[in-house]
Amino acid sequence: MKNKKLLMIIVDGVSDRSINNETPLSVAKTPNMDKIAAMGINGIMDTIAPGIRPGSDTGHLALLGYDPFKYYSGRGPIEAAGAGVKVNPGDIAFRVNFGTVEGGGSVFDKVVVDRRAGRISNTQSLIDAIAENVKLDVEFILAKGSGHRAALVLRGENLSDRITDTDPKIIGEKVKKCKALDKEAEKTAKIVNEFMEKAHKILEKHPLNKERESKGLFKANVLLLRGVGKVPHIPPFQEKYGMKLAVISGTTLIRGIGKILGGDLIEVEGMTGGKDTNIKGKIKAAINSLERYDFVLLHFKAPDEFGHDGDFEGKKKFIEKLDKEFDVLLNLDTSKVCLILTADHSTPIMAKEHTADPVPVVIVHEGVRIDEIKEFSEFEAFKGGLCRIRGLDLINIALDLIDRAKKFGA
Amino acid sequence: MKNKKLLMIIVDGVSDRSINNETPLSVAKTPNMDKIAAMGINGIMDTIAPGIRPGSDTGHLALLGYDPFKYYSGRGPIEAAGAGVKVNPGDIAFRVNFGTVEGGGSVFDKVVVDRRAGRISNTQSLIDAIAENVKLDVEFILAKGSGHRAALVLRGENLSDRITDTDPKIIGEKVKKCKALDKEAEKTAKIVNEFMEKAHKILEKHPLNKERESKGLFKANVLLLRGVGKVPHIPPFQEKYGMKLAVISGTTLIRGIGKILGGDLIEVEGMTGGKDTNIKGKIKAAINSLERYDFVLLHFKAPDEFGHDGDFEGKKKFIEKLDKEFDVLLNLDTSKVCLILTADHSTPIMAKEHTADPVPVVIVHEGVRIDEIKEFSEFEAFKGGLCRIRGLDLINIALDLIDRAKKFGA
Repeated sequence: MKNKKLLMIIVDGVSDRSINNETPLSVAKTPNMDKIAAMGINGIMDTIAPGIRPGSDTGHLALLGYDPFKYYSGRGPIEAAGAGVKVNPGDIAFRVNFGTVEGGGSVFDKVVVDRRAGRISNTQSLIDAIAENVKLDVEFILAKGSGHRAALVLRGENLSDRITDTDPKIIGEKVKKCKALDKEAEKTAKIVNEFMEKAHKILEKHPLNKERESKGLFKANVLLLRGVGKVPHIPPFQEKYGMKLAVISGTTLIRGIGKILGGDLIEVEGMTGGKDTNIKGKIKAAINSLERYDFVLLHFKAPDEFGHDGDFEGKKKFIEKLDKEFDVLLNLDTSKVCLILTADHSTPIMAKEHTADPVPVVIVHEGVRIDEIKEFSEFEAFKGGLCRIRGLDLINIALDLIDRAKKFGA
Repeated sequence: MKNKKLLMIIVDGVSDRSINNETPLSVAKTPNMDKIAAMGINGIMDTIAPGIRPGSDTGHLALLGYDPFKYYSGRGPIEAAGAGVKVNPGDIAFRVNFGTVEGGGSVFDKVVVDRRAGRISNTQSLIDAIAENVKLDVEFILAKGSGHRAALVLRGENLSDRITDTDPKIIGEKVKKCKALDKEAEKTAKIVNEFMEKAHKILEKHPLNKERESKGLFKANVLLLRGVGKVPHIPPFQEKYGMKLAVISGTTLIRGIGKILGGDLIEVEGMTGGKDTNIKGKIKAAINSLERYDFVLLHFKAPDEFGHDGDFEGKKKFIEKLDKEFDVLLNLDTSKVCLILTADHSTPIMAKEHTADPVPVVIVHEGVRIDEIKEFSEFEAFKGGLCRIRGLDLINIALDLIDRAKKFGA
């Protein structure tokens, strides 16, 4: 059987540290995940390396077989790709917040009074005004993100990402001047500061802000830039693996990973990238996408959010809700599809942050050496037949199983 | 006790994927291998890296502590060494088949009608005629291999292996012209094409071929070259480890690995490199060789062949036959000899090809932390005290156990 497919389900931050020998995943009632564990070969996985705390971006890169130490260059490029900008290698990209500043003089003399401009979301007219009226020595693209978020891309010769943020990240502080961290970056820093000033002037006088002012709302009169990075030269997924990639995620960052690797984003009604997402719809879309794609990455964000909130019960309940919809996965033809269930990192309740605690992983496919593990949990996975693997190896192990690996040697 | 010895037994391709929770190794009755597992520390091993499918050549290099990504340069050099040519770093080596071509004009206008010249085996007079009569700008060595096989080595300044095969590999196609893959390789390609033409002329008019023609046999009138590689600069085993290496294998490729590392080949009556090899004789020779050598590599090829054939029963039965002769291994003095039993890769029945599924490995020596594993099989090994290791680490682990490792630091 040729052209076997791969379905990788990544439950963001699902695994945890132990609190009285319990974790949300271990105490949640997850009959379907447990059946998947029983059908496959289990283990634990260091997404990047033991003790290295992954971001969701670096974690996903590793799980897709891209060494983040080689290919990761900051969150900006990935967010920009996720926001729909067709980024090119060499572009400089930032995450952007619309914010509110007060005071006189240059934009850099003004003080940030709100970092989200009162959680404004109708920013398209502001973006259009900037696109039309700001002129720089290089091309720029400002793209709308969700809510008060946006992405900024600078495109031109000899640009550098060795520069600092303009977002002070603290209320009451002045907007920061972009500084060059080396000689070669001075031109880029100068362009960024020029952009900051010009954009601020356009925003300050924009009718939408006049209207917000009259209503007592925070004006969206500044763009706060952070997470700068240079878009890396990264081999497209299809070129690297000869497989068509689809990504199903409501999270801009993960969508950005998909785009930056040349994959397609599959849209699902009711997919939010949050706790209220359409679980059933996403799983259905993933299974359907196996017809047209060779590798489908299905991502669920919510457990990570509950982890960041330190909400044990919430995390546990979401896992149970997720599990209910996993029943359809039990019917996959495991001679044709390799199913992987894992996480990109732990987001423990007690840490409220990503940690490097290894994540459970199970691989289901015809021929895997099924072990005795009958439960998908941090306390069982390490006893399985995979032992302890690394994230970067996962896709190679799967490609071997679906006979898409090439022999090295004779 | 100084000068402890190492006996590494590599059962080629012995491990497998799971078919209904069974593998040939797991269902075979192997009381002796099981006793060895019980006497030692067990684990699973990625010969090269997780998900990387090893060749028998790259796999053995790794098990002997040579990183194949650094030292492997194609099958030609290893086959040539295995065929008895004393290769030097920088030599260009090919695997060669005597074949049969028909048609007029240059050798490259002719069509291959048999890739094995009717499985001719008495090729020595043909080889001698070529050696005597073909003159090139560089030195060449043509060495007889088994049956219709041979090896060709080109020796001279600035030769390159960035060239293509002349073997079309398909009956009915023309002999291929050797092409340079870059500018520096053009000289080598020209020499190869000149050799092809001159050798063909000698063979065409050779009395043995006149005789074969009159008997209606395929003439051995062409040399088909493939598997080109440049002999790497590779530190001899004795220099790298301070140990004298002996290799016991009937397989040209593995013999070549032994030669290329400067080891000695131990000959055994009835050793065939196949399913009918003299198992008892090889084991006896291995144990005897521990007197004169520090590291003895004992290789059995047959399980790999049964794997390539997809023959579950045959593989199982050969494993049982092998196991019967392993009884003498139980009497080794484990305070003086470190015994390792493992494989170079899996050759699963369902894949009929090498795969990257990790192989079981057991190390027996005084002082190892004996675990609870009582069976040498894919379903047990991973629960052992070695967990999951890499092939390149195996020899270092063994050298440490026999007190031949040096401390790094103070």
